[in-house]
Amino acid sequence: MRCSEEAIAEKETGRVEAFSDGVFAIAITLLVLDLKVPRLNDQAEGGLWRALAMQWPTYLAFVTSFLTILVMWINHHRLFGQIKKSDHLFLILNGLLLMGITVVPFPTSLLADYIESNEARIAAMIYSGTFVLIAIFFNLLWRYASGKGGRLLAKDHDAATVLGITEQYRFGPLMYAAIVVVAYFSAIISFMLCLLLAVFFAIPKSAKPRELNRI
Amino acid sequence: MRCSEEAIAEKETGRVEAFSDGVFAIAITLLVLDLKVPRLNDQAEGGLWRALAMQWPTYLAFVTSFLTILVMWINHHRLFGQIKKSDHLFLILNGLLLMGITVVPFPTSLLADYIESNEARIAAMIYSGTFVLIAIFFNLLWRYASGKGGRLLAKDHDAATVLGITEQYRFGPLMYAAIVVVAYFSAIISFMLCLLLAVFFAIPKSAKPRELNRI
Amino acid sequence: MRCSEEAIAEKETGRVEAFSDGVFAIAITLLVLDLKVPRLNDQAEGGLWRALAMQWPTYLAFVTSFLTILVMWINHHRLFGQIKKSDHLFLILNGLLLMGITVVPFPTSLLADYIESNEARIAAMIYSGTFVLIAIFFNLLWRYASGKGGRLLAKDHDAATVLGITEQYRFGPLMYAAIVVVAYFSAIISFMLCLLLAVFFAIPKSAKPRELNRI
Amino acid sequence: MRCSEEAIAEKETGRVEAFSDGVFAIAITLLVLDLKVPRLNDQAEGGLWRALAMQWPTYLAFVTSFLTILVMWINHHRLFGQIKKSDHLFLILNGLLLMGITVVPFPTSLLADYIESNEARIAAMIYSGTFVLIAIFFNLLWRYASGKGGRLLAKDHDAATVLGITEQYRFGPLMYAAIVVVAYFSAIISFMLCLLLAVFFAIPKSAKPRELNRI
Repeated sequence: MRCSEEAIAEKETGRVEAFSDGVFAIAITLLVLDLKVPRLNDQAEGGLWRALAMQWPTYLAFVTSFLTILVMWINHHRLFGQIKKSDHLFLILNGLLLMGITVVPFPTSLLADYIESNEARIAAMIYSGTFVLIAIFFNLLWRYASGKGGRLLAKDHDAATVLGITEQYRFGPLMYAAIVVVAYFSAIISFMLCLLLAVFFAIPKSAKPRELNRI
Repeated sequence: MRCSEEAIAEKETGRVEAFSDGVFAIAITLLVLDLKVPRLNDQAEGGLWRALAMQWPTYLAFVTSFLTILVMWINHHRLFGQIKKSDHLFLILNGLLLMGITVVPFPTSLLADYIESNEARIAAMIYSGTFVLIAIFFNLLWRYASGKGGRLLAKDHDAATVLGITEQYRFGPLMYAAIVVVAYFSAIISFMLCLLLAVFFAIPKSAKPRELNRI
Repeated sequence: MRCSEEAIAEKETGRVEAFSDGVFAIAITLLVLDLKVPRLNDQAEGGLWRALAMQWPTYLAFVTSFLTILVMWINHHRLFGQIKKSDHLFLILNGLLLMGITVVPFPTSLLADYIESNEARIAAMIYSGTFVLIAIFFNLLWRYASGKGGRLLAKDHDAATVLGITEQYRFGPLMYAAIVVVAYFSAIISFMLCLLLAVFFAIPKSAKPRELNRI
Repeated sequence: MRCSEEAIAEKETGRVEAFSDGVFAIAITLLVLDLKVPRLNDQAEGGLWRALAMQWPTYLAFVTSFLTILVMWINHHRLFGQIKKSDHLFLILNGLLLMGITVVPFPTSLLADYIESNEARIAAMIYSGTFVLIAIFFNLLWRYASGKGGRLLAKDHDAATVLGITEQYRFGPLMYAAIVVVAYFSAIISFMLCLLLAVFFAIPKSAKPRELNRI
C-alpha cells in the first residue's frame, strides 16, 4: 500500500478537518442547552404561552448563533477544500479558531439574559466582539495557509480563487467591529445586525455552478 | 492521485454527511441530560421507586424523541445515499434541518415537565409542531436536491426510487400537523401518537432485500 | 468511479459505525458532567480535601461506567469488524443498543447519589439492570446480523469466530442479571462486582497475535 | 476489493483514532459549560463589566485547559501517525488516556472556583495532578506501542523518530509533577506555569519542513 507523500499529507489534513468538524458540530448542538423550560408560578390559563413568548431573546440568540456557526462551518469547510498540507503552527491557529467557536454559547447566553436589562449594550458588545475575534482567527489561519505563495495549498491551486477568499475575509472583522460600535449605542440594533449578517451570508449568491459543486 | 471531478464532489458530500451525523449523534445523546435524579424529601421505604415512577413522562418523552431522531437519522442517511453533489443552498437547507434536530431536546423537556399540568396541550402542540417543522425542512432539502431532473443526484439515479421518496415525504408534515390538531384537544393522545408514529417508522416494512442492503 | 455492490454495502456499514462511534464518544464524555465541584459551607482548613473525599461514590461510579462503556465500545467495534452489510432492522436494533448506551449517565448519577442512603439497593438494581438491558440488545443485534447463515456478515466469514462471539455474548445478560440479584441484598457488593466485571473485560486475555491485530 | 492484512490493520487503527478524536473534540468543547453567565443582584451601571471581570479565573482556566487539551490532541494525533496496528491492551491504554482527557473539565472547574479561596493550593494540586496522570498514560501508551522493537508501529518505522518521541515524553510527567510541588506552595504560580507550559508546547519549534508536513 504505497502512497505518495502528497497523499499522506492530504489524509492528515482530512483528519484535522474531521476533528474540527466534530468541534463545530458539538458547539452548534450545545446551543440548545440555553433553551430553558420556563417555570410557572401561577397556573393561569395561557400562562405557558406567555412564559414561552417572554423568552424571545433566547430563541433569537439561538437562531443567530446557530446560523453564524453554520456559516462559519461552511467557510471552514471551503478553506479546507484549498488546504492540502498542515504543520504545527497551522494546527495551533486552527485550534485558536476552534476555541473561538466553542466559546460562542457563552456570549449567546449572556446576550439572551441581559438584552432586556440596562446592561444590554455590554452584553451585545461582548457578543459581537466574539465574532470579531473569530473573524480575525479566520484571517490568520487563511493568511498563514495561503501565504508564501500558498504554503499549505495544493501545488496547482488557482491563484484567483485564493485571492478572492483573501479579499472576502478582509471584511469579516471590519463588519463585526462595526457592529460592536453599534452595540455601544443600541444593543437591539446590533443584535439584529448580527442576525441579518448571518442570514446574508447564508443566502446563496448567484455563483457559477462549477464553484457551487465544489462548495 | 488523480480524481475525477465527480469523485471530488462525492467526497465533499461525504464530509457534509459526516458533519450532519455528528450533529444527529450529539442531539440524540443530549436527550439523556433531561433524565434527572429525583431528590427525596422523606426517606420513607420505597420512596425512590415511587419518585422514579412519578417521572414516567420524562422516560416516555426520552424514548419517543430518541426513536424519532433515530428514524430521522435513518431517513437523512438514505437521502445522502442518493445525493452525490452539494452546493451552498443545499448546505444551508441541510443546516436548517439540523437546527430542527438540535432543538428537539427543548420541546421534549417542555412536554415532560407540563404533560401532567393544565398547560399540557400547549406543550404537546409545541412538541408535535417541532416535528412538523423538521418534516418540512426534510421536504425542502429533498425537493431541492432532486428537483430540476435530479440537480444534486447521481447521473444514473433511479427515477422511480426518487419519486418514491418524494411521495413518501409528502405525508410527514401532514401526519405531524394532524397530531398538532389532536394536541389541541388532548395532550396525552397526541403524545402517544408521536410515540406510535416513531415505532411505526422504526418497524421494518417487507422491503425488497436489495433495497435493504443499500439501506 | 465504479464500485462493486459489496463495496457500497461495506461503505454504508462504515457510516453506521461512524455514527455509533459518535454516540459512544459523547455518552462516555458526558459522564464527567456528574463530577460536581463541592460547595464548602465552612472554610475550615482541609475542608476541600474532605469534601472531595466524601464524593468517592461519584468517582467510583464514573470509573465503573467509563470502563463499562469503553469495553462495550470495543465489543461493538469488534462486531462491526464482522458485519459487512446493513438493513433497516439492523439500524433499528443498533439504535436501541445506542439508546441503552446514552442512558448510562442517568443510572450512574442515581447510584452515586443514593449509594450511601437506605435506598441504595434500588439504585444499584437499576444501575446493573441497565447493563442487563444493554447486554440483551447486544445479543439481539449480533444474533440478527449473524443469523440465517450470517445474514449481514462477509461472505467468507469464519464460522468458528462467529460461533465464539455468540457463545461469549450469551454470558453478558446472565452475569449482569446475577449482579441485579446481588444488588437486592447489598448495593455496595453489586457496585464492586460491576467495577470488577468491567476491569475483567478490560484485561487482555492471552489471545493469539493475529486476532489481536484485527482487534 | 481485496486488501492486504496490513491495510485492514491500518483502517482499524484509523477508526480507533476517529473515536479518540471524537472524545477529544467533545471534552474540549464541554469546557465552555463552565463559563457561567453572572447573576447581578444590584443593577448598578457598570455592574456587568465588574461581574464578568471578577470571573477571570474561569476564563484563564478555560484557556489553559483548552490549550492543554489541544496540545495533547496534537500529540495523540502524532502518535497515531506512527502507529499502524492495534490490539486489545492498546485499546484499553488508549481508553485510560481518554478517561484522563474527559476528566479535565472537572479539575478545571474546581480550580476556577477555589483559586481565590484559602483552599486554592489543594485545587491547584489536583489540577496539575490530573495532567501528571494524563502524561503518564501517554507514556504507557507510547511505550507499549513502540516497545519490543515497535510492536504496533509500521514495519519501516524510523528508529530515530521513535526514540525522539520516547525521549520527549519522558519529561511530561516530571514537569507536571514539579508543578504539583509548586502548587503546594503557591496556587497562582502553579496555575501560571500550567498556562505557560501549554503555550510553550503550542509555539512551533524551528522544525524541519518535512517533519512539519507530516505533523
